[in-house]
Amino acid sequence: MSLIILGSVAFDALETPFGKTDKIVGGAASYAAIAASYVYDAVKIVGVVGEDFGEDNLSKFTRKNIDISGIQVKAGEKSFFWSGKYHNDMNTRDTLVTELNVLGDFDPVIPESYQDATYILLGNLSPQVQLTALQRLKQRPKLVVMDTMNFWMDVALDRLKEVLKQVDVLTINDEEARQLSGEYSLVKAAEAILNMGPKYLIIKKGEHGALLFGEGKIFVAPALPLAEVFDPTGAGDTFAGGFIGYLANKGTVNFENMKSAVIYGSALASFCVEKFGTERIEELTVQQIKERTEIFSTLTSFVI
Amino acid sequence: MSLIILGSVAFDALETPFGKTDKIVGGAASYAAIAASYVYDAVKIVGVVGEDFGEDNLSKFTRKNIDISGIQVKAGEKSFFWSGKYHNDMNTRDTLVTELNVLGDFDPVIPESYQDATYILLGNLSPQVQLTALQRLKQRPKLVVMDTMNFWMDVALDRLKEVLKQVDVLTINDEEARQLSGEYSLVKAAEAILNMGPKYLIIKKGEHGALLFGEGKIFVAPALPLAEVFDPTGAGDTFAGGFIGYLANKGTVNFENMKSAVIYGSALASFCVEKFGTERIEELTVQQIKERTEIFSTLTSFVI
Repeated sequence: MSLIILGSVAFDALETPFGKTDKIVGGAASYAAIAASYVYDAVKIVGVVGEDFGEDNLSKFTRKNIDISGIQVKAGEKSFFWSGKYHNDMNTRDTLVTELNVLGDFDPVIPESYQDATYILLGNLSPQVQLTALQRLKQRPKLVVMDTMNFWMDVALDRLKEVLKQVDVLTINDEEARQLSGEYSLVKAAEAILNMGPKYLIIKKGEHGALLFGEGKIFVAPALPLAEVFDPTGAGDTFAGGFIGYLANKGTVNFENMKSAVIYGSALASFCVEKFGTERIEELTVQQIKERTEIFSTLTSFVI
Repeated sequence: MSLIILGSVAFDALETPFGKTDKIVGGAASYAAIAASYVYDAVKIVGVVGEDFGEDNLSKFTRKNIDISGIQVKAGEKSFFWSGKYHNDMNTRDTLVTELNVLGDFDPVIPESYQDATYILLGNLSPQVQLTALQRLKQRPKLVVMDTMNFWMDVALDRLKEVLKQVDVLTINDEEARQLSGEYSLVKAAEAILNMGPKYLIIKKGEHGALLFGEGKIFVAPALPLAEVFDPTGAGDTFAGGFIGYLANKGTVNFENMKSAVIYGSALASFCVEKFGTERIEELTVQQIKERTEIFSTLTSFVI
């Protein structure tokens, strides 16, 4: 019984209207694993870093009891590095630097101790790597959640569709849902995407919340209305980690639990954007997360 | 005890990806009054039409027991006419024709029988006309709701701000909230706008739902996820009419009732976009509206 988080473990350098950072820890798996660790005990990362990543940065995970035996450390090589600058509206950004480094030929290794996984998040990485990781599990986990992005739709659509056939839940944003389906209406897009394999689809709409589709039902989750988004980097990964962590904790996968998991993930993502990188989500308490999810209840409850 | 709906009563010619219409009945007051009539008995329009409007079209209102004694019929003149074409995404449109006609020098007349009004919707019209109508009421209604649009912010901002000081609730869309406040964040925009006079602000976000701000609280209302938006014309007016009609019915103005009113307005707006013009909202039953509001409950309910 464990939860595998596959994804990049990396360095980011970020610039927003509020400030800029030097190289800080980033990567989909970093955000997702830290988020999941608040609600589930047996979180295990599969990833790769260079020699430059260092023990100190790895301790961000071990401090949260996250298993890092699936993180390969490549001697003499450098970690994946991404640098980006957000525009004033925080919804658009320019990529300044992308250095693939160790991610260029990442061959995911699943340690024997990970083979008990019942949940897996295939975090945003090339569809080929996602597929390989899944194939290297001797037993298919009970729930496979996949995150991806428009880049992979542009350069590896066929392989992406191959992975899609094997996943239970896909999480993408609204523009990506439109691109993948060719449909403008998100309801039609969801219908088309659910025909590609996943049983559930989550469409992330940033400040407009999220939509969950599956079992012929729809759930509309709000986003927390925020006065300021300090740094949106990693919010989607944090969401995905909180989402699957919540389900792993519950142990039962159904639409009702998925709704709660979407709220849990949204609450964690709302913390993520309050500071640069993983800073805010590293320092949370269970009580703070509980209070935030209660705000989500208050925000949307009504009687008619 | 009555509800006054001030606004345009007009002809529209519409073109959407699904088809086009000849001149059909449109105008903010038309949509809002019909919407309000499902939940409140004493709905009264203040507006102006030309001789071309005709008894047949006026019967759309009287059939719903809407009082039209405040609609001036100008002999020998023509009704306001707007023609527009929606793009494929349905979120943007081109105005093809705007003929002000009788609206050009509209001087709103409040019949004596309207002076018992306890609720008034200042539908989208020039701020000067909204102000005049309000001033002609001998007693200030218990609740004044104002709808407006970016056009008036461009050409009559000072007068618009003068009206704002006298209203209880403002309804605008997200882009308009940003324009009016100069703030990108909707939370900051709301704060700025609530400092301009209104006690409550509703920000309409189309397919992303609506936000209600007031009493230091926030309510996030979903939109119904729709496979197809046939014609978005009048959805905002329908929302405003359903909203104020619901409150007039309840008789008590507080945040809890406002939340329900937002849902009621959203439910009516979700019908509006299913057909051209007022066609769909003319033919509703109370039971259909009830079922639609129950869908809104189901869409957003969760346990955590």
